[in-house]
Amino acid sequence: MTIDEALINKIKNKDRKAMAQAITLLESKASAKMRLAEDLIKQLPAHPQTLKIGVTGPPGVGKSSFIEAFGLYLIDLGKSICALTVDPSSPTSQGSILGDKTRMDRLSRHERAFVRSSPSGTQLGGLSSRSIDIIRLCEAARYDILFIESVGVGQSELDVSYATDITILLIQAAGGDELQGIKKGIVEIADLIVVTKDDGDFRSAVAKTKKQYRNAAHYMRPKHDRWDRKVLSCSAHTGDGLESVWNTVLQWQDEMNLHLKSLRHAQAAHWLQHKTEELILQHFWAKARHTQEYQAIREAILRGDLDLYKAVEKIQAIIHD
Amino acid sequence: MTIDEALINKIKNKDRKAMAQAITLLESKASAKMRLAEDLIKQLPAHPQTLKIGVTGPPGVGKSSFIEAFGLYLIDLGKSICALTVDPSSPTSQGSILGDKTRMDRLSRHERAFVRSSPSGTQLGGLSSRSIDIIRLCEAARYDILFIESVGVGQSELDVSYATDITILLIQAAGGDELQGIKKGIVEIADLIVVTKDDGDFRSAVAKTKKQYRNAAHYMRPKHDRWDRKVLSCSAHTGDGLESVWNTVLQWQDEMNLHLKSLRHAQAAHWLQHKTEELILQHFWAKARHTQEYQAIREAILRGDLDLYKAVEKIQAIIHD
Repeated sequence: MTIDEALINKIKNKDRKAMAQAITLLESKASAKMRLAEDLIKQLPAHPQTLKIGVTGPPGVGKSSFIEAFGLYLIDLGKSICALTVDPSSPTSQGSILGDKTRMDRLSRHERAFVRSSPSGTQLGGLSSRSIDIIRLCEAARYDILFIESVGVGQSELDVSYATDITILLIQAAGGDELQGIKKGIVEIADLIVVTKDDGDFRSAVAKTKKQYRNAAHYMRPKHDRWDRKVLSCSAHTGDGLESVWNTVLQWQDEMNLHLKSLRHAQAAHWLQHKTEELILQHFWAKARHTQEYQAIREAILRGDLDLYKAVEKIQAIIHD
Repeated sequence: MTIDEALINKIKNKDRKAMAQAITLLESKASAKMRLAEDLIKQLPAHPQTLKIGVTGPPGVGKSSFIEAFGLYLIDLGKSICALTVDPSSPTSQGSILGDKTRMDRLSRHERAFVRSSPSGTQLGGLSSRSIDIIRLCEAARYDILFIESVGVGQSELDVSYATDITILLIQAAGGDELQGIKKGIVEIADLIVVTKDDGDFRSAVAKTKKQYRNAAHYMRPKHDRWDRKVLSCSAHTGDGLESVWNTVLQWQDEMNLHLKSLRHAQAAHWLQHKTEELILQHFWAKARHTQEYQAIREAILRGDLDLYKAVEKIQAIIHD
């Protein structure tokens, strides 16, 4: 793969094969490929017109189904859609506990859509700074709407809110104790709360949950001065409520219009810190002496010859050397 | 506060005031105090006899109630108990969505117990490497049992399993879909699964959930070769089941006895990496020139004068300088 104008043009034209190859390159951990990835990322043009929508919520709430249904709804309105989703993975093995969920078959087959599912990696949650590069790539491909799904555990929701314009928190109607299961911090980063599965027998439970969250919203810190968090509901199954979700997103765009630039600048500053720390560590480990001495200390710990805190003293000496 | 033999002796004798002061010191972010903290940690003796029990589980499952009831049960058996618990906090404000939970009043008033609640900080989940230092302190105080509670969101469960000998995952009986809500990765790091609230009207639902998890356990990767994950239940309210939880912990100790040392060495190697990365970053930021140049670049981003990827190039130049 060569990084040239032809490739950049293919990306700009949403060529799926080029997109998939570029993402694989950005995800690579081989050092030669990482250099190519750096090259690529420098040449990708910014495209501020793409609206980035974060989709968060606890496991099982229906994030994939929502993105697929909402994505297809927006395609009917003439939009082009890109969705970065997450393969649930465990630290020791791949796959969610109930096996693979629906991975947006209908959406991913549509010609105006691009769906890419990345493994959530060994970290339980948390976007890597590589994810930011992939987001940049999808913006360069000039999609109208970019969905970014979080794995739904703590840190990842926060990271997604730092990488997107608007964050939609999906919740499910349950037994009345719903508020307890969702951390206040997760609700506070949501611009829009959508109760899922608003169909069939669930409708009255959904209405109740919506009311509870609307009441609770009064006691929560606003995310932006200019926007009151909204609580809606929808059904990915029947499509009910999707129009109202989209209208609320448009209303958000109207209200936030003047502030979106500074919001994005603040987000870039956030990721600058991540990227800087990554580069500092890379630079340290690039020295063969550092990795060798570190490995020797590590092995002494594993043999039981060295206590953690004695090891830390030795590391300090190496760093200050 | 001076770090001298008198202080170390007070800690060894479980002097609560000295313990509390030492933890405050270890949590401090002021640089003079951080140096004192380093001094302290070097002088704390290891005490491998302390059994470290991790308690994880989703928010609302009853982690505090379990630790309090189980702790009081163990105190009746003559044990001394230390519990490191977490104050749920949000990224923007403090406190859980439903306000403060019971913070183990009965346990913390007992003379053979020490309960310390630390804020979970701005990160949603994740133990900091400071938590490891606090654990070392509690071991030096020679408690028989040390409980470490996770905040119950993703990364923190993993971290707790790297910091403790045995991990107990608490789950709750729900509507039949229980397995979906708990990530496979979280279940795989548990040595022991305990269904909580096994009392009153819930008993049959608890029995059902226990059965489901026992079946599911067959399909899950074992955590250790020598130990089959057990599924139990208990009630923090009535005390039912606590004896059986303790007997299972003792059974685990018997089985794992020969392997505990190498398990702890592997954990120390894990934390060495965290601490090393922390020290590398500290060393970089200790140079005034680095922080000044970084701040200038960050401010250019915030003003909109610099794109993230252009900024990263500038940072690279500083690091390689």
